[in-house]
Amino acid sequence: MRIYDIIQSKKRGDALSNEEIQYIVRGVTDGTLPDYQTTALLMAICLKGMNAEETTALTLAMAASGDQMDLSALPGVKVDKHSTGGVGDKTTLIVAPIVAALGVTVAKMSGRGLGHTGGTVDKLEGIPGFRAALGMDEFFATVHKTGICVAGQSMSLAPADKKIYALRDATATVDSIPLIAASIMSKKLAAGADRILLDVKTGNGAFMKTTDEARALAGAMVAIGNMAGRRTSALITDMSAPLGTAIGNILEVKESIEVLSGGGSDDLRHVSIELAAHMVQLAHIADGDIDACRALALEAITNGQALEKFAQMVAAQGGDRACIDRPDRFPNAQIEHVIPSPQTGYITAMDTEGIGIAAMLAGAGRETAEDEIDYTAGLILHAKIGDYIKKGQPLATLHTATEAKATAATERLLASYTIADNPVPKPPLIHEYITG
Amino acid sequence: MRIYDIIQSKKRGDALSNEEIQYIVRGVTDGTLPDYQTTALLMAICLKGMNAEETTALTLAMAASGDQMDLSALPGVKVDKHSTGGVGDKTTLIVAPIVAALGVTVAKMSGRGLGHTGGTVDKLEGIPGFRAALGMDEFFATVHKTGICVAGQSMSLAPADKKIYALRDATATVDSIPLIAASIMSKKLAAGADRILLDVKTGNGAFMKTTDEARALAGAMVAIGNMAGRRTSALITDMSAPLGTAIGNILEVKESIEVLSGGGSDDLRHVSIELAAHMVQLAHIADGDIDACRALALEAITNGQALEKFAQMVAAQGGDRACIDRPDRFPNAQIEHVIPSPQTGYITAMDTEGIGIAAMLAGAGRETAEDEIDYTAGLILHAKIGDYIKKGQPLATLHTATEAKATAATERLLASYTIADNPVPKPPLIHEYITG
Repeated sequence: MRIYDIIQSKKRGDALSNEEIQYIVRGVTDGTLPDYQTTALLMAICLKGMNAEETTALTLAMAASGDQMDLSALPGVKVDKHSTGGVGDKTTLIVAPIVAALGVTVAKMSGRGLGHTGGTVDKLEGIPGFRAALGMDEFFATVHKTGICVAGQSMSLAPADKKIYALRDATATVDSIPLIAASIMSKKLAAGADRILLDVKTGNGAFMKTTDEARALAGAMVAIGNMAGRRTSALITDMSAPLGTAIGNILEVKESIEVLSGGGSDDLRHVSIELAAHMVQLAHIADGDIDACRALALEAITNGQALEKFAQMVAAQGGDRACIDRPDRFPNAQIEHVIPSPQTGYITAMDTEGIGIAAMLAGAGRETAEDEIDYTAGLILHAKIGDYIKKGQPLATLHTATEAKATAATERLLASYTIADNPVPKPPLIHEYITG
Repeated sequence: MRIYDIIQSKKRGDALSNEEIQYIVRGVTDGTLPDYQTTALLMAICLKGMNAEETTALTLAMAASGDQMDLSALPGVKVDKHSTGGVGDKTTLIVAPIVAALGVTVAKMSGRGLGHTGGTVDKLEGIPGFRAALGMDEFFATVHKTGICVAGQSMSLAPADKKIYALRDATATVDSIPLIAASIMSKKLAAGADRILLDVKTGNGAFMKTTDEARALAGAMVAIGNMAGRRTSALITDMSAPLGTAIGNILEVKESIEVLSGGGSDDLRHVSIELAAHMVQLAHIADGDIDACRALALEAITNGQALEKFAQMVAAQGGDRACIDRPDRFPNAQIEHVIPSPQTGYITAMDTEGIGIAAMLAGAGRETAEDEIDYTAGLILHAKIGDYIKKGQPLATLHTATEAKATAATERLLASYTIADNPVPKPPLIHEYITG
């Protein structure tokens, strides 16, 4: 087998064989394939595509390139959830306890945030004492004890994907549906869950700007998961506005606790119930009827079991359970500024990415992987798309540490709102359901 | 300017600006642009193309990446000729003396052969004493004295092209018309001639297998030359059979002398006259009428001036002029084998590349750049497409050094002939003329 011939085949638009794909991933993993050949191939894939079989073969080869979690020793059906990332997306903090309360085993690796999107691990670490960096033994022991654990990724999952992603990032070959799908799914498969629910975000705050793109990515990932023998389905959810009202680590934990307590904003509660219901459906705990699954998810909130499960998880991972029971015990930001609306009218559009960046500028996120996070920093939005607001009324409340940050964040936030005379409807929250 | 954005533009199919192309070529030349980014861009160019302006900008940037010959101190109009390479193509040896005899200044850099195609410098070095490796002073002095010099490339012409070609060769991005055209023309422009005639070969012995491909390449190169202010035109000539009857260095010099003496095979004479006439036309020595140019070229043969010019050039470059006057003085191969036809019938097709490889196996060429050449080795073809031959009649005569080479070359030669019952017409020699 020669890499030259493989590149030539893909350049012509031919499908690569499983053997060819394994050959490439082996070469990338062990460093014998020169980067300049890998990137030529990646560009050819970007422009000529890959079919479902090729994409699955690439995913499996990358998943097998490093450590692979074996969750078989854990009881029950292990269901994972993956979000393609958005602003204010704290659903893992709500959904994982709900499904764990219903008997689904949650043994989950989560990531950190970068740029305008936050990461679940960062949010959890906003809870005083919470430890996401667990050894394998502790991870398994926690799941055994409480049925749920959300940890940071400590193992070397899919190192081939990491190398390939770095090359794609340097060669403008990121935006390829097969490559994105294989990248995400290789890590999900290596993480070991039996079933996978994908939350593919769409809108101006998401990587997939249009529903068509989101559908293509969701379809590709669902196909991979099911071809790989892991039952997988997907929801396409909206990211034309931040999800919920809180953006920033502790602020989002507090909003999650509100939802788990039966309150919180409607959009966040609705999306969380949908995600939880589909995880329950994937786990086959209910009879498969999605309305029954929705009812179970709601009930887990109403009867307090989901919040209790969340508190158990926090405690098991070293976090201060008292903060869960009494969220006013969380530390607060040094500065709290109410940002008034600069005009009267209807909010017709939000630059979601801009709002994410505003929160980052307030201290809630990282511009580079080395930046430190201010867990107390962030934004509470008081008005979203479709709302009517009068000039001077509170648009948002900013939580931050310095006046300089406040100025930068405020400026960015105000530039992210469009306020006009005529009303627009609120965007739909769930665009599509995709099952394998 | 960021290379990422440049790659992204080309991936989308946008045209690159002159500044972007210069930025890339600078980065390739000084080594600051990582190969993995260059190859991603090359694949995008391969699949998305480049327009005439981009291709010209790339050509000029590569031409300017190293030494550039300044021929302005030489008298007269300097006209260069470039062949895309074929089997038995010794036209430079015939055409250069013809046009020099007519007053065109020929200050030409030529290349060596590799694989199934021979190189002009190798052929000339088959003349005892001939030196192609000249210093610049000697090169200029020779042109001043005799009006003609054909030397090997000693300067670093278009080093960016050399680097880019090596990357293309490793990443299956060779077969792109804009990249091929820019590669050839960058070296031609750096070589300094005022006008350029291109001989684009087409057929199974050429890199361009079809007339359509050859036309596209010729058109791209003619456009570049004229946009760069060097009057350029092109002929598309046939390579579905070797040109002339001799293949191998000394054998081809001898055939060239035959043509310069008014003899030689019809196809070689015809193509040589056409090329010479078009070079004369480019030089504007005649009034531009191509028939008048043809007549001048023929006359230079008939009156012996072209052969005399060739002898002068050989002598000026240290070669044994006596060999030109008496070609029987050239050294001969140790073994001369007549290869009989294995059957009776019409020759309907020749695998030209296969015949070139047969000559290489006989010792006439190099498989790798390090191989040594046997200047006496090669083939004389006694029958070509359209000819009728009886079983046992001489198909070709093999010149070589050992029986082992004879066996290998004979086997390859016989496998390259198709002999059938029904006659076919001889292929056309000139497919098209392309002027700017």
